[in-house]
Amino acid sequence: MALDIPVSKLPRVIVIGGGFGGLNAAKALKGKNVQLVLLDKNNHHTFQPLLYQVATSGLEAGSIAYPLRKFLGGAKNAHFRMTEVEEIIPSRNEVKTNDGYIKYDYLVISTGASTNFFNMKDVEENASELKSVSQAIDMRHMFLQVFEKMLLTDNEVVRARLMNFVIAGGGPTGVELAGALSELRRRVLPDDYPELDLKKMRIILLDQGTKLLASMSEYASDHALKYLEQFGVEVRLGVGVKSYDGRQAVLSNGEILPTETLVWAAGVKGELVDGFDSSLIAKGNRLKVDAYNRVDGFSNIFAIGDVAMQEDERYKNGLPGLAPVAIQQGSHVAKNIMKLVEGKSPEPFKYWDKGSLATIGRLKAVGDLSKTMHLGGMIAWIAWLVVHLFYLIGFRNKVMVFSDWIWNYITFDRRVRLIVRPYRKEKIKGDSA
Amino acid sequence: MALDIPVSKLPRVIVIGGGFGGLNAAKALKGKNVQLVLLDKNNHHTFQPLLYQVATSGLEAGSIAYPLRKFLGGAKNAHFRMTEVEEIIPSRNEVKTNDGYIKYDYLVISTGASTNFFNMKDVEENASELKSVSQAIDMRHMFLQVFEKMLLTDNEVVRARLMNFVIAGGGPTGVELAGALSELRRRVLPDDYPELDLKKMRIILLDQGTKLLASMSEYASDHALKYLEQFGVEVRLGVGVKSYDGRQAVLSNGEILPTETLVWAAGVKGELVDGFDSSLIAKGNRLKVDAYNRVDGFSNIFAIGDVAMQEDERYKNGLPGLAPVAIQQGSHVAKNIMKLVEGKSPEPFKYWDKGSLATIGRLKAVGDLSKTMHLGGMIAWIAWLVVHLFYLIGFRNKVMVFSDWIWNYITFDRRVRLIVRPYRKEKIKGDSA
Repeated sequence: MALDIPVSKLPRVIVIGGGFGGLNAAKALKGKNVQLVLLDKNNHHTFQPLLYQVATSGLEAGSIAYPLRKFLGGAKNAHFRMTEVEEIIPSRNEVKTNDGYIKYDYLVISTGASTNFFNMKDVEENASELKSVSQAIDMRHMFLQVFEKMLLTDNEVVRARLMNFVIAGGGPTGVELAGALSELRRRVLPDDYPELDLKKMRIILLDQGTKLLASMSEYASDHALKYLEQFGVEVRLGVGVKSYDGRQAVLSNGEILPTETLVWAAGVKGELVDGFDSSLIAKGNRLKVDAYNRVDGFSNIFAIGDVAMQEDERYKNGLPGLAPVAIQQGSHVAKNIMKLVEGKSPEPFKYWDKGSLATIGRLKAVGDLSKTMHLGGMIAWIAWLVVHLFYLIGFRNKVMVFSDWIWNYITFDRRVRLIVRPYRKEKIKGDSA
Repeated sequence: MALDIPVSKLPRVIVIGGGFGGLNAAKALKGKNVQLVLLDKNNHHTFQPLLYQVATSGLEAGSIAYPLRKFLGGAKNAHFRMTEVEEIIPSRNEVKTNDGYIKYDYLVISTGASTNFFNMKDVEENASELKSVSQAIDMRHMFLQVFEKMLLTDNEVVRARLMNFVIAGGGPTGVELAGALSELRRRVLPDDYPELDLKKMRIILLDQGTKLLASMSEYASDHALKYLEQFGVEVRLGVGVKSYDGRQAVLSNGEILPTETLVWAAGVKGELVDGFDSSLIAKGNRLKVDAYNRVDGFSNIFAIGDVAMQEDERYKNGLPGLAPVAIQQGSHVAKNIMKLVEGKSPEPFKYWDKGSLATIGRLKAVGDLSKTMHLGGMIAWIAWLVVHLFYLIGFRNKVMVFSDWIWNYITFDRRVRLIVRPYRKEKIKGDSA
């Protein structure tokens, strides 16, 4: 069966994935002299950096997701199909999807990254992750349901276990989520749950490394740690999770930590699609690409963003898995494809590091502008807000997020405290110790 | 096991259900000299009249739901528990929940109504309904997924079936949903799906009766029909659905209508809880109550809203299942309980009919202000907007809904076009005829 796309005389570019990379490639290709086919298993782009605010009831999911069809804006040369890619068959220049085969002239793989559980099946089964909108909504349901559950048990052992919130992984996701949970504990939960003794609620952030925000400066790491500790988060470095059965986590030092909520934010891996020889796959499940983002050995297959491993004199292990890398590569690869279509020579990609930012909570963030310039406190926090609003897709979404941020800041409220459907019932075990 | 509620010397009033009735009872009881225990299986109130706008991508779910804990606002005498009620044991003044038993001095049953499929198991299994937030989100996913699926099939029979949208039931829900779908067809879908021939999309509204909006005036029914036909909705009166297997609906006249999307809005029934003798249950699965909303034979058990059947000289079959009835009964029953607590005599309930409104689409609505005063067109539409904003719970929700309405009106856009998770995969069969 063939995936049904209108016939065109133009060369066909297939872009797999509507994340930061794919979206920017598509943006640069719509309206051009190619046929653009965008494939994604979801019908929307997800602004992943704000998923943790959806998980902590601060933002609506709809404010950080953007319909891909609307993004393409009905451009005549652009076609979106909501389908899952099963395999790439380079020998036939063909992609196999759930809904049939489709041929390409140029292929851009921007499938992003998924959570890496490092083969710990029990952790994968029982922990929560935060890579998609539905996972963020599930996590919101879970957090809220845990508090409801605390009031429905008279078993002190169970209640103590429910009170422990454990986050594994001290990267931006873990740090930002821990900060957001501590804000809930300070201002929102006491109003909602006057019957609970929230002093007993523990937020524990674990990281196997020696510092938080490992990819950032010492300044940023130190300040993130200081801010989190001010907010009452227990940060434990040099400790990882070895196993988790949904009730207790066994740590790398042998300690047992009872908890019903373990968030796993301790690793990602490239979301590869089948069809490539293992020699093309680098550490972290990423496709090796050259300076033009071409997958090694292919002239018309490109990989960008988190699924690509591109060396650079500054980054021997490949460019970091950050949104700006994917965004820049997306635009660049599209330009190169247009050059190839027009018979010109492509240009090598050069990553422009604009710095990085991470927020911890109200008026507290950290940032690196360069190797020597660092920000902290309110200035970094404002910079973080501005940068995230700027990169968020869609005017209406920017308005929604901005107005929610103002509301949240002024009222200390988090309006989306809704359990729409029970979170995996079997997980919230609650009633026995 | 007992449901754990702090001990109090005050008489305990249990309110089951946080819909319009329960919420208004709770509002009038918080801060008073009783212990208020509100029970609901959800943690939020749902503003049901706007569910159809969530289902058609016009509003976020979070804008029409309101956290019950926030509603109680931390009142010292008020306790919320998220649990399901299994049974009422009047002989022991006790309620049995999923999470244990709890005793009451006064009980208010405001469990509302659920969809009535009139024992048609196949319809219940395969059709969609619109009574809760999660059902509205599921319906949104389904509608959007159907359009994606149209582009993924090359089978004309399947595509034709996907193009048929059938709504059974010409009450307010059916009429409003049909109107909203026709607006999507006119302005949103053509931009998103330029490849589809949307002239082939059919919206079919069926009703077994002789007119739409049966509970309203001839004027309202006639105008609703006229507006819907202007919008290209096929309205078919005197026709019902006899069976539905997920692919084709068999109508009461024997006709077969192929469709993958059948919305069932053709009946409701009281959401009874176990524990009452069948002699106490009236038509429509409702509890018979006296003029004080007391369940027949009990002095301390009250039923209000859709689950109550209260006769009145004007309404021989009981008061209608409308939000205003539940709202007024909720406040009234709370006042009567306070009178009883204080040793005073309760007062009979008197329904104040303020009229009713139904919207069909952009600038088109109908309304009855009294038996002789009717509204249509833009005036009714504006009245509908104002009334719904007024009754919506929560300041922030009002702001959100109002701003979305302005946005939708000006841009013709519907921003929440998101499929967060696949809608019951097995249902969208698509690929075979």
